[in-house]
Amino acid sequence: MPSGTELGAGHALGRVSGRSIVGGEVPPVQDEAEALRLSRAPGFHAVNPMTGAVMPVRFIDATPEQVQETCWRAWEAFHEIGERPPADRARLLHAIADEIMGLGDALIQIAEEETGLTPVRLTMERERTVTTLRLFGDLARKGDWVRAAIDTAEPSRRPVPKPDVRRMLRPLGPVAVFGAGNFPLAYSTAGGDTASALAAGCPVVVKGHPSHPATGELVARAACRAVTLCGFPGGTLSYLQSGGARAQAIGVEVVANPCVRAVGFTGSFEGGTSLAKAAAERPDPIPFFAEMGSVNPVFVLSGALESQAGAIAERVYGSLTSSNGQMCTCPGLLFLPRGPAAEDLLKRIGEPMNKALPEPMLSARVRAAFVERLAVAQGAKGVQVWAGSPQAGHRAAGEAQRAGEPVLCSPVLLRAAYDVFKRHRALHEEIFGPALLAVLCDGEEELVDAAALIRGSLTGTIWASGTDAALAQRIRAILEQRVGRLIFNGVPTGVEVCAAMVHGGPFPATNAPHATAVGPFAIERWCRPVCYQNAPEAFLPPELRSGNPLGILRLVNGEWTRDAVGKKPGP
Amino acid sequence: MPSGTELGAGHALGRVSGRSIVGGEVPPVQDEAEALRLSRAPGFHAVNPMTGAVMPVRFIDATPEQVQETCWRAWEAFHEIGERPPADRARLLHAIADEIMGLGDALIQIAEEETGLTPVRLTMERERTVTTLRLFGDLARKGDWVRAAIDTAEPSRRPVPKPDVRRMLRPLGPVAVFGAGNFPLAYSTAGGDTASALAAGCPVVVKGHPSHPATGELVARAACRAVTLCGFPGGTLSYLQSGGARAQAIGVEVVANPCVRAVGFTGSFEGGTSLAKAAAERPDPIPFFAEMGSVNPVFVLSGALESQAGAIAERVYGSLTSSNGQMCTCPGLLFLPRGPAAEDLLKRIGEPMNKALPEPMLSARVRAAFVERLAVAQGAKGVQVWAGSPQAGHRAAGEAQRAGEPVLCSPVLLRAAYDVFKRHRALHEEIFGPALLAVLCDGEEELVDAAALIRGSLTGTIWASGTDAALAQRIRAILEQRVGRLIFNGVPTGVEVCAAMVHGGPFPATNAPHATAVGPFAIERWCRPVCYQNAPEAFLPPELRSGNPLGILRLVNGEWTRDAVGKKPGP
Repeated sequence: MPSGTELGAGHALGRVSGRSIVGGEVPPVQDEAEALRLSRAPGFHAVNPMTGAVMPVRFIDATPEQVQETCWRAWEAFHEIGERPPADRARLLHAIADEIMGLGDALIQIAEEETGLTPVRLTMERERTVTTLRLFGDLARKGDWVRAAIDTAEPSRRPVPKPDVRRMLRPLGPVAVFGAGNFPLAYSTAGGDTASALAAGCPVVVKGHPSHPATGELVARAACRAVTLCGFPGGTLSYLQSGGARAQAIGVEVVANPCVRAVGFTGSFEGGTSLAKAAAERPDPIPFFAEMGSVNPVFVLSGALESQAGAIAERVYGSLTSSNGQMCTCPGLLFLPRGPAAEDLLKRIGEPMNKALPEPMLSARVRAAFVERLAVAQGAKGVQVWAGSPQAGHRAAGEAQRAGEPVLCSPVLLRAAYDVFKRHRALHEEIFGPALLAVLCDGEEELVDAAALIRGSLTGTIWASGTDAALAQRIRAILEQRVGRLIFNGVPTGVEVCAAMVHGGPFPATNAPHATAVGPFAIERWCRPVCYQNAPEAFLPPELRSGNPLGILRLVNGEWTRDAVGKKPGP
Repeated sequence: MPSGTELGAGHALGRVSGRSIVGGEVPPVQDEAEALRLSRAPGFHAVNPMTGAVMPVRFIDATPEQVQETCWRAWEAFHEIGERPPADRARLLHAIADEIMGLGDALIQIAEEETGLTPVRLTMERERTVTTLRLFGDLARKGDWVRAAIDTAEPSRRPVPKPDVRRMLRPLGPVAVFGAGNFPLAYSTAGGDTASALAAGCPVVVKGHPSHPATGELVARAACRAVTLCGFPGGTLSYLQSGGARAQAIGVEVVANPCVRAVGFTGSFEGGTSLAKAAAERPDPIPFFAEMGSVNPVFVLSGALESQAGAIAERVYGSLTSSNGQMCTCPGLLFLPRGPAAEDLLKRIGEPMNKALPEPMLSARVRAAFVERLAVAQGAKGVQVWAGSPQAGHRAAGEAQRAGEPVLCSPVLLRAAYDVFKRHRALHEEIFGPALLAVLCDGEEELVDAAALIRGSLTGTIWASGTDAALAQRIRAILEQRVGRLIFNGVPTGVEVCAAMVHGGPFPATNAPHATAVGPFAIERWCRPVCYQNAPEAFLPPELRSGNPLGILRLVNGEWTRDAVGKKPGP
């Protein structure tokens, strides 16, 4: 293991152990024999995609015993957390946010080295992460999210008395979180899945992402300090390193563990569907929430095309190249009516692309997938490369990434006629990275048909001016069946954290179209309703007691109120 | 096909065609060749379980073409229904209720002949069915169920402007409903799944249950009359006959059809899991809601046992034998502390059992499964038959049901020590029918352990008096993780239709623990949230328009209100 000196004094990597955090702590090395064993155990190194350099810390894959211990500790913690008032969870979430901020620039620096994302982007992502943690803390404290409903008894009802029935959302149990490669902070260790699970009362087992293990460990340790500080049990949050020979096995072990009661996954279609299968094949299948690939189609109608080509080109280009195209809401398909205005728009998008310098991608694996999918798309008969470099990173075709070299790519614009798009199913799939396929449609019917051809997606966008209204309505009616969020005259990137946000959508964007991964309603993924019939007050959770001690909003005999049961609703 | 005369004048079977209802009507027979083909097509007859008599109407399995046509018509109807105001759906649901009531006693008579359930029970079930239809009609009209949320724009926000974001629940598309054998009305053709799906705006394709095809056809035709009356498209509700050689194939074809966007299933564990697999293996997996087996454990603690043995025995016996034990909430396991009070309770439950006459079961298939599961339980070393007849229907052991004989069984009380129960996993599974296994526990720890051993169940019941409070709390804390509804000092049968009801639970009770099949929240199964970002007013559904034309409850910038957007919330 490296010492601080190797890395330069004060470099945060010197504080990284390279080990998993089991039940709140890195298990101490017992003796020399174990130290030797650890040095030979399956492990991995992170790679700096900006330089291609292998980073010095060796991370050790969690052992099967550690996976088991971690899940068991989470299960134990679940029962302890269940007895605590919601305000305690609120304090914990705020404390985690504070501890993450307390990591200071060291966190941004390490995350940059591990992901190649810019400090500006990472600083914004950190802001989003702590905002989300605090949002869920406040949500837990307010308590309305439990959707309490109370129907009071009518003992004199005929033919049978009406019982007293009360229900609320209760936590499912320990939640496993598979962090995202493209969001090392906001959708990883202490991101939205973790924050919403903790707010619901579910301990979290994080399966660390192999491309940013040091970032993950730093955040996990910060979160564990908050856990200790707030007097929560050690099993409240654990972090499993995973990226060596055991990487896939660890994922499956976590999903199959009987103590794990739900899973949140953000990543590839292949990873998501294969782990979802593992969850479904348990003796007791558990809820599995996967956010996977998304093509995020953009429709530009003729009125908008004529009147706003400049603005559309600028915004679409900015959205496409944001974080070098590695956003789940990156626009991948552009549908537009054939004609001079379309040519003008493509020219405006293509020009900056031809000048764009290669930018880092998250990892060699992400780049390899980008190159491969791009080659498939280009190879489809009728697809033309219109701007940018099809050989991702301005390399010669077919040349693979070399170890020790920067992991780069540059944006690409492809184009095809609608009938070409229609024929090739491969063109309907996501190319993760800064690639945009413009599909030129002849007439309105092809634009409408295109909307019907799209697979499930996180977002769909319509650019329309006043003269486009009728066609825009037709496309809206179809597109809304295929997406979680419809954007008008805007771009899909930039997911606002608010109650009305839906970050989800039909398969294959997710495998659970009824859920959102962003915003307060994301908490409902980790819960199920539990009903209490004729329960004495002492057996009811505070949320359901007649006096409403927490003052939450409840549906009492069909009316939403914060009043105690038995009182008349207020004026 | 039989004529009215064969059946006796006025018998409702004379009105039954024996055919599927595709897009609102029974497809007319084109010519003699088709009539001949139909007479040779796969089909089946219902059997009267009270007499064993094969009923005269021959029902013809839906053809693959009919399945396809039906689903396509539902898909077409979906788009038409989507354009209508919610009040239209309300009218439709009330009209269906009225048409069902309009069938009068003929419906009760046919349902009795097909299921062996008593007219009293069926009349109550019809009442429940129309109440549920009207409840969902009123829910659709009121509109609050869509969970609308609006976050308004802040164009001046830095670093990026905040968009206007609005979301609500929208229907998924056509829903396939697999009706239940044990509820020919309330959980079948126009039962809770159908009512909630129609209320959401989803057309319904009913896969008819083979044991009550005439009941199904009558109800479906009544519903289709309402569809016509209210001016809804024919594809709004279809009914597929299925019970002959194609019975299983029809189920799979429906689940796999691309026009079907969600499935509701009530039935056996085997049926539910195998169709859920088919839904998951589609190129585009769809939500599948299965309500399957449930053991409904009852814990009687010593204080209650000492003080209320008479009342407990009477209520548990009544619950167990209600509809001859063929309720999804039938109590199957009874845990109690060993001792004289336990012996007294078992005696009180056993005595009426020993005098009970055999009662009809739903079908020979249900009876065969009951006999088989009972034999497995009895065969476990350490299990004793304590009262009633283990040979279901007072037959000699091993004797199978004979054609043309009444399909009967009688209630049975088994007993075993806790360690026997613990050892035999087969004892943890549902025996569908009037069988109760009493498990005698030594000491409080065994009772607590028993609660932890239970598989997921729709309900769990605790009988406790004041002196049992501490133990009851421990059991409550564990049991609530395994059930959808916890009942105190009561019985699990009798599922109240109200907002606070949860009819659901962890696997294997259902495969979707976050859902309920009863009460207004059941509508959410057929929906997903859709979000509109910066949408012009004309592109928003009425539920999300700023003026709130429908007057629904909405979460506007974090506060629930019926006010228009832009106005200050009321006092």
